Amino acid sequence: MMTVAETCLKAKENLSAIAFASEKDMNAMLSAAAAALRAHAAEIIAENAPDVAACTRGAQFVDRLMLDEKRIDGIAVGLEKLIELRSPVGEVLEERMLYNGLQLRRVRVPFGVIGIIYEARPNVTADAVGLAIKSGNAVVLRGSKDALRSNRAIVRVMKNAIRGAGFNPEFIQLIEDATHEGAEQFMKMNGVIDVLIPRGSAGLIRNTLLNATVPVIETGTGNCHIYFEKTADIAKAIPILINAKTQRTSVCNACESLLIDESFASAHLVEIVRALRDKNVEIVACEKCRAILPELAPATEDDYAAEFLCLKISVKIVSGVEEAIAHINMYGTHHSDCIVTEDAAAAEKFLNEVDSAAVYSNASTRFTDGFEFGLGAEMGISTQKLHARGPMGLRELTSYKYQIRGNGQVRG
Amino acid sequence: MMTVAETCLKAKENLSAIAFASEKDMNAMLSAAAAALRAHAAEIIAENAPDVAACTRGAQFVDRLMLDEKRIDGIAVGLEKLIELRSPVGEVLEERMLYNGLQLRRVRVPFGVIGIIYEARPNVTADAVGLAIKSGNAVVLRGSKDALRSNRAIVRVMKNAIRGAGFNPEFIQLIEDATHEGAEQFMKMNGVIDVLIPRGSAGLIRNTLLNATVPVIETGTGNCHIYFEKTADIAKAIPILINAKTQRTSVCNACESLLIDESFASAHLVEIVRALRDKNVEIVACEKCRAILPELAPATEDDYAAEFLCLKISVKIVSGVEEAIAHINMYGTHHSDCIVTEDAAAAEKFLNEVDSAAVYSNASTRFTDGFEFGLGAEMGISTQKLHARGPMGLRELTSYKYQIRGNGQVRG
Repeated sequence: MMTVAETCLKAKENLSAIAFASEKDMNAMLSAAAAALRAHAAEIIAENAPDVAACTRGAQFVDRLMLDEKRIDGIAVGLEKLIELRSPVGEVLEERMLYNGLQLRRVRVPFGVIGIIYEARPNVTADAVGLAIKSGNAVVLRGSKDALRSNRAIVRVMKNAIRGAGFNPEFIQLIEDATHEGAEQFMKMNGVIDVLIPRGSAGLIRNTLLNATVPVIETGTGNCHIYFEKTADIAKAIPILINAKTQRTSVCNACESLLIDESFASAHLVEIVRALRDKNVEIVACEKCRAILPELAPATEDDYAAEFLCLKISVKIVSGVEEAIAHINMYGTHHSDCIVTEDAAAAEKFLNEVDSAAVYSNASTRFTDGFEFGLGAEMGISTQKLHARGPMGLRELTSYKYQIRGNGQVRG
Repeated sequence: MMTVAETCLKAKENLSAIAFASEKDMNAMLSAAAAALRAHAAEIIAENAPDVAACTRGAQFVDRLMLDEKRIDGIAVGLEKLIELRSPVGEVLEERMLYNGLQLRRVRVPFGVIGIIYEARPNVTADAVGLAIKSGNAVVLRGSKDALRSNRAIVRVMKNAIRGAGFNPEFIQLIEDATHEGAEQFMKMNGVIDVLIPRGSAGLIRNTLLNATVPVIETGTGNCHIYFEKTADIAKAIPILINAKTQRTSVCNACESLLIDESFASAHLVEIVRALRDKNVEIVACEKCRAILPELAPATEDDYAAEFLCLKISVKIVSGVEEAIAHINMYGTHHSDCIVTEDAAAAEKFLNEVDSAAVYSNASTRFTDGFEFGLGAEMGISTQKLHARGPMGLRELTSYKYQIRGNGQVRG
């Protein structure tokens, strides 16, 4: 078994196999890998079965881990969709002649080696490899121990297919060392890993931020808010809330917190609560809500900060848009937040002052997604402000360099 | 004395004073601060004097610490130049209508709170405040203990001027706790400091990378290379080398390493060495160089990786552009590197394959600088690939957010 350091260095040593690949070659790799995943589905499922059998972590966890033919086909379709997207590599971002005749050009380039650290979701393995290929990056994958056999099978099938198509696939590397120490080594591979992206639970992300010395992009934790401003149209408000809270509860762009203007709550709280209860949503609420509906359970400070990821919501009455913005900037996770209002000035204030990656007026927070935003695919949703914010597509997996062409210029 | 956490929180609490300031107001703050620095020069010099008197760190260190009227005027001119630059805040980077009628807009926004950690250079204090103002950011400054009185005076004068002009200056905060523990706390203010930029020695930068849990932009270390390809024009080659090595030796874009193609060395090594010696440059060289000129001192592996920052250079003969690129990518610091060549294909290969922030053909590496690149000013030169690469001007001190305007859209 290669050590973590050896694995990372091997990806870096083979970086040129992808960094200087033509778009045609990238597409040939993606196409070969997709076809091979379908052709070897049975082999991958056979390796996935012991991972699933050994897993003792509960139904939701197993559901994410489990692969069948339909899911493998979905993974292959995802790779094929990347073929249609344009590679961002080589794009000229800026071109200027300087005062001294130097020709300055700013060009988009791959990061180099991307590290991905994630949990027991084997689909992430193939997605990350696909995004790396189309963005010209080498990739080092560090999945969970629970999915190691599945990940090994997927990576083997994809690499063999790329090799079979005439390319060197060694810019793709899977870390086999599943120990905690191995993960920590991975996070400190300065000079080898150019950026590390954790994908998964808040715990994984926090642990990566605390331990990594390589640059990290923080992703995903979403305590998303819906705010019903006093002029909100109840006919829009309730469908947006129900969609954001219940359409899919385990995702980072789902709503976790509802804020309501006092007068709007007086008029509509009963109806709002009824709509949530019809969808079996558990409600915890502030004292002002409980003054209207005493049977509501009380919300704690922790509830306001929580990412429930299930059919549960906190509800709080606020005095107006100022308090709503302050509350969201204090308790939120800077992911996605929405105001429902018919007042254009309130909407603009909210859109400008809420400090989140995606800020909405009159639409569900569930739209924060690479596909929905038209990026075509995503490596995760950044909740930090450095480099990329919101959905990270191919463009967000690149850096740039300055190329300066002279004819003997020296500095005076 | 406020604690580090209190200082950082105070900057964040007052963020809206600058984040939502108009460009006119930003300019009024800069103008008032510049005028006040000139008007209070004597007061600042009086506070700088005890810092200088207490300093026992050698002439070069004292030179960077010392302020006089001319230097303070230079600092004020720097602030005034920022008035002419356009603030990047609010720029619409992208605007699209999605398939479902959602209006998606990507808008440039300030980072929020920028942290700067630096050494005993009081000019950085005023520069950083100026750049923060014009990029809409709050700023927390953590200078060196050796410059604490000077920094206090500069910050006090600037803040009083901003207050006098009718604005709240509390988005500017100076950390007074000069202890090592204080610096470490500063590096872990997640949720308060949006990005931390270390400016100074390689040791400071390394220490920040190792200890920070907030996002960091790595700046400045420069082991820059000049490579004389076999078709180089000696009439361009020597002036470029001498300019890059000797025009200013203590800066990160100065040349530290020279690579020479074998045939070019056979023809020109003696002349190159003579030109360097005429400028009192100490040379350490590879065995192939020493076979031509046995009196040259031998270079070690450490020499090839060193940022000398003085009149010293390593010289190595290489077999061609491939070896030159591999050597630079291995030993360099991804800052600025140059090929001198008359062969267009060799130039393009070098420009594409050297993995540095700024890659040159036929020009001095000394041009890697915010002013030279036309950015107008800079907060440092990034040598990492996340977020910003090369000189960081106002634009590089911003992030973006998505604003999405709907009329009731929900996800299907």
